[in-house]
Amino acid sequence: MVQARYQYAIDVMLTRLRMIDADLTKKNERPLIRNLCSRIKTAESIVKKLERKEREVTFETAVNTLNDIAGVRVVCYFADDIYQIADAVRRQKDFTIVKEKNYIRKPKKSGYQSLHLIVEVPVTYLDKTTAVRVEIQIRSVAMDYWAELDSQMCYKKDAGQLEAVEKATKQYADVIAGVDKKMLELRKKIQKM
Amino acid sequence: MVQARYQYAIDVMLTRLRMIDADLTKKNERPLIRNLCSRIKTAESIVKKLERKEREVTFETAVNTLNDIAGVRVVCYFADDIYQIADAVRRQKDFTIVKEKNYIRKPKKSGYQSLHLIVEVPVTYLDKTTAVRVEIQIRSVAMDYWAELDSQMCYKKDAGQLEAVEKATKQYADVIAGVDKKMLELRKKIQKM
Amino acid sequence: MVQARYQYAIDVMLTRLRMIDADLTKKNERPLIRNLCSRIKTAESIVKKLERKEREVTFETAVNTLNDIAGVRVVCYFADDIYQIADAVRRQKDFTIVKEKNYIRKPKKSGYQSLHLIVEVPVTYLDKTTAVRVEIQIRSVAMDYWAELDSQMCYKKDAGQLEAVEKATKQYADVIAGVDKKMLELRKKIQKM
Amino acid sequence: MVQARYQYAIDVMLTRLRMIDADLTKKNERPLIRNLCSRIKTAESIVKKLERKEREVTFETAVNTLNDIAGVRVVCYFADDIYQIADAVRRQKDFTIVKEKNYIRKPKKSGYQSLHLIVEVPVTYLDKTTAVRVEIQIRSVAMDYWAELDSQMCYKKDAGQLEAVEKATKQYADVIAGVDKKMLELRKKIQKM
Repeated sequence: MVQARYQYAIDVMLTRLRMIDADLTKKNERPLIRNLCSRIKTAESIVKKLERKEREVTFETAVNTLNDIAGVRVVCYFADDIYQIADAVRRQKDFTIVKEKNYIRKPKKSGYQSLHLIVEVPVTYLDKTTAVRVEIQIRSVAMDYWAELDSQMCYKKDAGQLEAVEKATKQYADVIAGVDKKMLELRKKIQKM
Repeated sequence: MVQARYQYAIDVMLTRLRMIDADLTKKNERPLIRNLCSRIKTAESIVKKLERKEREVTFETAVNTLNDIAGVRVVCYFADDIYQIADAVRRQKDFTIVKEKNYIRKPKKSGYQSLHLIVEVPVTYLDKTTAVRVEIQIRSVAMDYWAELDSQMCYKKDAGQLEAVEKATKQYADVIAGVDKKMLELRKKIQKM
Repeated sequence: MVQARYQYAIDVMLTRLRMIDADLTKKNERPLIRNLCSRIKTAESIVKKLERKEREVTFETAVNTLNDIAGVRVVCYFADDIYQIADAVRRQKDFTIVKEKNYIRKPKKSGYQSLHLIVEVPVTYLDKTTAVRVEIQIRSVAMDYWAELDSQMCYKKDAGQLEAVEKATKQYADVIAGVDKKMLELRKKIQKM
Repeated sequence: MVQARYQYAIDVMLTRLRMIDADLTKKNERPLIRNLCSRIKTAESIVKKLERKEREVTFETAVNTLNDIAGVRVVCYFADDIYQIADAVRRQKDFTIVKEKNYIRKPKKSGYQSLHLIVEVPVTYLDKTTAVRVEIQIRSVAMDYWAELDSQMCYKKDAGQLEAVEKATKQYADVIAGVDKKMLELRKKIQKM
């Protein structure tokens, strides 16, 4: 039933994000969300993460300490769309924002950029309502492209080239950040016409 | 946004039914639900139905008088599974049962069998919660098979053979009801072993 | 690349069966195929099957001796639809029928009914064409329902009730066969109207 | 049956492209294709296109003069992946390349970039094999992103701002082309490490 609960929380989140997109599309006269996807962490990678964090490997610890067992990713067209979407999520009265991490203002050392929200979603079954945490990652098309390339690069890093590869991928990340900035300027220019 | 709301209500219902199935599968040591599907009535068939009911064709009348704009169908293995599922739906504290029609105890003239529930599902967006009606049709594999055959038969009925075809399809329906009864007996026999 | 080849063969088979259905639907003025699904045997169950057959567990032996690594299932409305579909498969000039097993005329001891065809499908890549075997199982809705119930019953059989359960499931199978016969009679009666 | 034939050709193309990707992934030690999608032109837009070309609106003219009734789009990670994929398509012995348009070397006036191949795919049914044309569009993630933005911009162009918008979108296209060049350089740098 626990897995079913995480799936339920993901379904609620996806369906709410679709409503948010319908709403914002009307306001902005263009779609903001390009695609949505979701995943539930496998038992295997839950165990790995608990071990890495030097926590007890129990079911309870997992539910209490891991915030990303259920994850939803939102990819949008422009960098400023990210904040419109995050704002709409924050304004849903039945959601509670537990934590926010802005890896756009402050990218990870690898160059990774995204806005992360940990949200508690109410899951009702029979006569009980439980709050279930879902991690939402919101990013632009460019940031998403970069994240995929970065994960493809991993085997090179393992092959002992860590530092050199990190330097190069950092450059990728800068190119990407540059695109997002440029695209935003152009869009604003066109909107003013 | 109205269509988005019906879609939201369907998604909540589907995801809740999956939790119900996970729960009942554990209790019964076998799955009960064989498949789930859903549909939203098209604008065209909403208009047709309002006209047939001699109602004004407005958006408001549709939302207020039609209970089956959003529909979910549940097909289960045995005839008694239907009542276990319906019962679990009734016990969800956030749902309100608006109406029930038992076309199993009292089949339609055509021979159609199913249990229909009209359920109000809460749909939250921003700071507002609306109750949205969803029609659930619960039926056995055999009843589902019959319903499909019946709809294939329609063109014959239109071709002026109405009465004769209805008599024959009624016999189909009786064969189907016979299977469900027989299968139930056999399952109970096996469970007692 | 081997798995890709089996997937390719399945895709060709599914897409051909959809063309067959379009063709037969026109001729019969009703659809014949209710649903199509497919699966590729997992590495694990390939190993198991080779061990059960007391064969060497190598890649080559698997490809040469197992006919059901790629499988497609066709479920149709009436028992006689099975033969119309099988016939259309046999008449595809680029397919070769390697083997046929008619478990309808001669059900398995468990009561299992289906028509099985092992078909060789040409798979072209670059400048080479290979013949890849696909197992097609064709059955009626009723036979399909029975097969699902039978596989749910397995745990009871394991629990030492083998003989008694087999006797009871045999009765299920007879009920099912009875339905198919009855439904066929009724359809013919309606068609003559 | 004609629509079924176009669908068949698309299925063959998609499944072949998946084999090509499996093959190239092994050679390059990284995936090349990020996603695949397909569409069949609707009857409505076929009529429109024939009228625009001042052709007779018949079924025959459509099949003989339109090359893009069936379309497949391939999106890949880097700009040079496009040519590896196109090359593999050209080397399939059962395909015939009817036409090629390189809108990368020579972008459309709007800034649109992609490599287009019109390919004839053999479709076998019963004892007949027909050649069916499929248009393949191969492009990078960046080019794909641009194409989507461009189609969103359409309403602005309709609003009489044609020239100004075209100038601005041309700038988008240049930014995009810049990214692809930069990303390629970086990848080559990393590969050499």
